[in-house]
Amino acid sequence: MSEASISTDLAFADGDDALSPILTATDSMSVTSDGCLMVEGKRVDELVKEFGTPLYMLSERTLRANYRRVARAMADAWPAATKILYAIKANNNLAVRAIFHQEGAGGDCFGEGELYATFLGGATPDSVVLNGSNKSPRDLRAAAELGLVINIDGEDEIGFLRDIALELNRSIRVCLRLRVIPEEFADRAPDYIDSAGRSLAEKIEAAQWGLSVENAARLIPAIMDTPGLDLLGYHHHLGRLLPDLDYNTAWARELTGSIGVLEKRTGYVPRLLNIGGGFARERDPESRNRELNPTRVEDHIRVVTSELISGLNGLGIPLPELWVEPGRYLVGNAGVLLGTVGQIKRDNERVWINADFSINNLMRIETSGSNYHVLAANRLRTPAVEAATVVGPLCTGSPIARDRPMPELNRGDILAVLDAGMYAETASTQFNGVPRPCTVLVNGERVDVIKERESVLDVFAKHRIPPRLRR
Amino acid sequence: MSEASISTDLAFADGDDALSPILTATDSMSVTSDGCLMVEGKRVDELVKEFGTPLYMLSERTLRANYRRVARAMADAWPAATKILYAIKANNNLAVRAIFHQEGAGGDCFGEGELYATFLGGATPDSVVLNGSNKSPRDLRAAAELGLVINIDGEDEIGFLRDIALELNRSIRVCLRLRVIPEEFADRAPDYIDSAGRSLAEKIEAAQWGLSVENAARLIPAIMDTPGLDLLGYHHHLGRLLPDLDYNTAWARELTGSIGVLEKRTGYVPRLLNIGGGFARERDPESRNRELNPTRVEDHIRVVTSELISGLNGLGIPLPELWVEPGRYLVGNAGVLLGTVGQIKRDNERVWINADFSINNLMRIETSGSNYHVLAANRLRTPAVEAATVVGPLCTGSPIARDRPMPELNRGDILAVLDAGMYAETASTQFNGVPRPCTVLVNGERVDVIKERESVLDVFAKHRIPPRLRR
Repeated sequence: MSEASISTDLAFADGDDALSPILTATDSMSVTSDGCLMVEGKRVDELVKEFGTPLYMLSERTLRANYRRVARAMADAWPAATKILYAIKANNNLAVRAIFHQEGAGGDCFGEGELYATFLGGATPDSVVLNGSNKSPRDLRAAAELGLVINIDGEDEIGFLRDIALELNRSIRVCLRLRVIPEEFADRAPDYIDSAGRSLAEKIEAAQWGLSVENAARLIPAIMDTPGLDLLGYHHHLGRLLPDLDYNTAWARELTGSIGVLEKRTGYVPRLLNIGGGFARERDPESRNRELNPTRVEDHIRVVTSELISGLNGLGIPLPELWVEPGRYLVGNAGVLLGTVGQIKRDNERVWINADFSINNLMRIETSGSNYHVLAANRLRTPAVEAATVVGPLCTGSPIARDRPMPELNRGDILAVLDAGMYAETASTQFNGVPRPCTVLVNGERVDVIKERESVLDVFAKHRIPPRLRR
Repeated sequence: MSEASISTDLAFADGDDALSPILTATDSMSVTSDGCLMVEGKRVDELVKEFGTPLYMLSERTLRANYRRVARAMADAWPAATKILYAIKANNNLAVRAIFHQEGAGGDCFGEGELYATFLGGATPDSVVLNGSNKSPRDLRAAAELGLVINIDGEDEIGFLRDIALELNRSIRVCLRLRVIPEEFADRAPDYIDSAGRSLAEKIEAAQWGLSVENAARLIPAIMDTPGLDLLGYHHHLGRLLPDLDYNTAWARELTGSIGVLEKRTGYVPRLLNIGGGFARERDPESRNRELNPTRVEDHIRVVTSELISGLNGLGIPLPELWVEPGRYLVGNAGVLLGTVGQIKRDNERVWINADFSINNLMRIETSGSNYHVLAANRLRTPAVEAATVVGPLCTGSPIARDRPMPELNRGDILAVLDAGMYAETASTQFNGVPRPCTVLVNGERVDVIKERESVLDVFAKHRIPPRLRR
């Protein structure tokens, strides 16, 4: 794939009113003259005819463009070496992992399943990290054998790793995961309520990862004294509790402050800093509104790194290698979920458009209140005539979209949910016994199935009825 | 299984302080003298040794006791015929379905997957209903061929069913799903916030099922005039938006009112009334508190049926056959999720107990704020010494339990989450690439695997990497 083919110029026909206000710099979407959504070189109506619905589709061009954009921003912003580790939790398709491997990405893994996918997708061990607050001794051993970097997140792990290093007779590269959260920001989002009714303050307080400076100061000498452990530096993932840059700046300031305190108390100077992911996205369903976010990923990276650079310079600490772990940023806008319109019901002063996709395929609506763009994908040049609510076929009342302007639709029309590339497939369920969708990867006019559609038999494949219960 | 063996008397040893305040009438749990949770005749530590964790376990005695309790309450409360249809969405293990079939239950299904499970579990078609706001023509045809009752939920379906009846040359039994919600109750729960930040009013307003009286009055003559359709009566499932009985009484009043209006406008008198489920549970994690609910299922059924009887008597309408569709009530307290303690971390003024089960196995914590009892299952006679927060191994910050009094625990100790029989397995995910647990059915001292444990290979079984992406 040449650089030219991942250009962010979209080959629009004229009059792209349905899309242009919401397009981001790396989308590979356009609209045909007869009003059909195209992803790269494929019309979605043709994809639906060939593969059925619900259907997740991913644009390879967008995946690569997102990666290159972050890589460029990192190289521009950080004078020392940088590395991008793909956070596979956002989308664990092996083909997606293979694409990022081709682009040069390392990986961030939680547990055995993500390790498996990361290596089956082609990653090389030296730029893969194992994260987690409860790594099993088995996972630690597998990670040490493979040569991963292990982010220590508790005292127990030091002893386990010492024994493993001794047994394998090799040195294990580790980082220490810090707990660095600008808690004074907790009341900055008074309206923030998460899925379980928690405020931002409660959510921050309940974050289980990392070690306070107090505990880190105690463990650093222990790690440094443990034969077989090579302490590379620190890890901390803020996540995107609040998307605004002030929050991220305050966090970077607190992080360098912690590094300084630890240097004073233990003499330890990190060679590596892994600051996780959570980068600003332009079209941002998790923000719960559908306006474009003016903050660009370049701004986000520049603001955080500037703060880190001035903080570390102030402390006289040489700039370490900088690793980041983007997940949703790399995959989010590369994914579109396609569904077919079924029954249209007018009742209770509403228009209900029933689709065959559901909350099962977009769990972040339920768990985070994500607010997605839903398009009438084969009627994009037809004027909207009414507000409609799009629902799925499940027994739970979870609208995919409420009161959205829609053209006149009929059974068989196609709906598209944007930004379905992140936390959609990996968090999907089979609730109501519904099989999970097929996933296709689009590359120009080429389409590959990268995850086969489940059948009902797959949903119940592990079930057993004891003979005595068969009468 | 004899009636005696499902007695609700629990063979407790003395001093069951850890359990007695939270036990319900049909739990099959006790505590051994050395402090281990027993479900029926099995110690959970032995189950964990044999089957590993995370492990869902279900008590057959409790499943049967719950069913018989509802059946008795229904027979006591309703002078005409009654039938219990198991709402398989709550727990779709084929073995569970087989048990309820042995007990005499019909079934409530949404879509092809639940139809499959219901019949593989042994149900007989004449007491199975097909629900859903977007039944596919294919599902309608399968249901008609099998001889199910189909709950019509929109105008389209009438035409599809007419054609299917003609083609199959048989009569299809249908009910009409009504929209009957006591909307004046919407502001009764000002603190209610669902997973997506919706108030109760918004939630009621967004319920997609059923037809208003206006629309029903239009469709009833159409259905009655359609050859091949036999309109048995009405369906309406209120669900458990609010658990209090006033709400359910108001709803029953509104339902009979609607039946009266429809009788006046169309002359139609129902022979069948299917009022769905949502019955009061004693230990009720979905209420978001862990106090026992004083309302009993018998009270709930009596209050609703009394209101229906007096309303229908007032209208001069003979009592129809009454069907109910309990789901969570039948299975909720029959299930326990077992996990193993891993790393215990003291940081940020908290004690974090890491377990190997997670929010993946208990999604209702994230989607409904469910508040479960979590027990130190092999330390039930050990005094609590501190408040601890129980978390899983995932990358998302979702505590299973916060600030709970716990005894001193160590790596390898066992945790048990109660009420994991409902909406836990059916709503589970493989987020972070984590395989889903094994499920065992306990019957006295006998244990059967009814769902095999997934492996990492199962999680990625449908994934494909196009050869061109393998370098």
